[in-house]
Amino acid sequence: MKAAVLFKTGEPLQILEGIEMPPLTRGQVQVKILYSGVCHSQLMEVSGGRGEDKYLPHLLGHEGVGIVEQIGEGVSKVAIGDKVVIGWIKGEGLDAPGGKYLHENYTINSGSATTLSEQTIVAENRLVKVPNGFPDKLAVLLGCALPTGLGLVFNELQPEKNKTIAVFGLGGVGMSALLAAKLYEPTTLIAVDINPQKLELAKQLGATHTLNAQNTDVVESIVTLTKGGVDYSIEAGGKTQSIELAFNSVRDQGGLCIFASHPPEGDTIKLEPHAFHRGKMIRGSWGGASMPDRDIPKFVDAYHKGLLDLDVLITNEYSLDNVNNALEDLHQGSAIRSIIKCSEG
Amino acid sequence: MKAAVLFKTGEPLQILEGIEMPPLTRGQVQVKILYSGVCHSQLMEVSGGRGEDKYLPHLLGHEGVGIVEQIGEGVSKVAIGDKVVIGWIKGEGLDAPGGKYLHENYTINSGSATTLSEQTIVAENRLVKVPNGFPDKLAVLLGCALPTGLGLVFNELQPEKNKTIAVFGLGGVGMSALLAAKLYEPTTLIAVDINPQKLELAKQLGATHTLNAQNTDVVESIVTLTKGGVDYSIEAGGKTQSIELAFNSVRDQGGLCIFASHPPEGDTIKLEPHAFHRGKMIRGSWGGASMPDRDIPKFVDAYHKGLLDLDVLITNEYSLDNVNNALEDLHQGSAIRSIIKCSEG
Repeated sequence: MKAAVLFKTGEPLQILEGIEMPPLTRGQVQVKILYSGVCHSQLMEVSGGRGEDKYLPHLLGHEGVGIVEQIGEGVSKVAIGDKVVIGWIKGEGLDAPGGKYLHENYTINSGSATTLSEQTIVAENRLVKVPNGFPDKLAVLLGCALPTGLGLVFNELQPEKNKTIAVFGLGGVGMSALLAAKLYEPTTLIAVDINPQKLELAKQLGATHTLNAQNTDVVESIVTLTKGGVDYSIEAGGKTQSIELAFNSVRDQGGLCIFASHPPEGDTIKLEPHAFHRGKMIRGSWGGASMPDRDIPKFVDAYHKGLLDLDVLITNEYSLDNVNNALEDLHQGSAIRSIIKCSEG
Repeated sequence: MKAAVLFKTGEPLQILEGIEMPPLTRGQVQVKILYSGVCHSQLMEVSGGRGEDKYLPHLLGHEGVGIVEQIGEGVSKVAIGDKVVIGWIKGEGLDAPGGKYLHENYTINSGSATTLSEQTIVAENRLVKVPNGFPDKLAVLLGCALPTGLGLVFNELQPEKNKTIAVFGLGGVGMSALLAAKLYEPTTLIAVDINPQKLELAKQLGATHTLNAQNTDVVESIVTLTKGGVDYSIEAGGKTQSIELAFNSVRDQGGLCIFASHPPEGDTIKLEPHAFHRGKMIRGSWGGASMPDRDIPKFVDAYHKGLLDLDVLITNEYSLDNVNNALEDLHQGSAIRSIIKCSEG
């Protein structure tokens, strides 16, 4: 099979053919991948922002959709022929190590769920069946962007009606959080990014205000707009600076910032201690506190009811051969979410 | 009357005699001060760590005990002759500006509660009557150290039984927090400071372990001792570094750091974003979330029942003439809480 492989951090992924699939062990499932997503995490892994990669050569990707081809011992959650979401967030079922793939005379490593290949071996607990009637391409995003972005709002923030909310960073996570936040009828919903097209789209999707962080003092603008700061800020900009801006934009006496970004290992966020005394709060999110088996059906249900216009989230599609272009466009910030076509359905 | 006055940040307080008390306005109360405390906040104000002081020359001090001499229009909470706690935390009653004192041909400014003088003018809402039978010297600490340190635990943390807790910085706030934490029967209660005498005292008061931050990797020691980090850390070390240590010492998945320190204006705490994703939490405390009128009687009651050995907290006493020595000793970290005798009772 064909896969995009990281051989050395700081270098492009290499597209290899003729990789051999190893036999399945307990809890493992072999999946033919239709589509994979690419996410800021892969940029970090490729650039070395997550630190030394001890598993080189290494398969990457952590959200995808595919068809079950084989199941290992003990697997009962999915059956051959099922269409499944592959994601990094642990759900029900057996845990299992990733596959160790053979190529020529060496092994290619992988984690419990990787997706940038024609086929993959995934732990049962990283799979959820795709609910009937949900589009394949969107199902990719059920592996990471949607549980994180929607979960941030539905599971963690659960804002009361008539609050003020700001969303920082309009990628797959931020834009889906914006769609979810809109459902709670905030009086003010501010979208912040540096890409004018994304800001325009956010406005169409219901943002009451947009701010371009490249030419605006975002904190000052938000404090002025909301007379003191927003009740909630949701951060998915990928950088320590966007986390700091999001924290500084919430109001004193109970304003809460929740951030999803995983900046490079070793980077720190610099926060003013007195802001905490004045009652600003900050929390990190681990995949929107989502439980995939519980939450994916809920998200799909909301989509079918027309509550969440998720189709706008997928802006670009690439072949597996062009995965490095997809990563570069993601790095430039032009895509909301890009998907990679990994094999024919 | 005599007072310690800040004329220029970075210089010692000047002891002036013959300051004239102005007439009281609505909500103000004139108090003869018996004792005042000194606290890290005064060090910050004197050194300029709070930024430019726009009120120079300026009276300082924000916890004390005294006798009401006169009451202004509208004041009903206290009467002439009452013994009162003076503190910076707002309680019930009228708010009012501080006194503007006259000396020779200029005005000396003050906030709504200052205490480093023989007499003072205080807003009604910064006063609480001292409950019967509570020692004068300890009553000083009801203005700041005790509401903050005890409030941190009784109001904010309210730890369940059998938890692991670490206290960083054993001044008046930290040591009183330690005494309060002990009542919740933690399995492990770790005291951290750089002063061996304070650590020894903490052990006598019930700390199960003590760590000298000057010669120990505190985070590593705590992680080892508690197999992953404490459930709660309470920080009162006065520095951004001690806040960072306290945050890094709590466990993943729900460990909570609450900090009381007000480091110099402009200093930031540097925190690892991934620690938030792993579930560490941090909050700032505003005076232990204390409501003086509600909480002071509770604290005094616990003392009278023998639950809180507060007497150990006062380690040094100085005359008003020697207030600069008191500040220097506080800066050196040798005192837990120092009190200043401001006038004869």
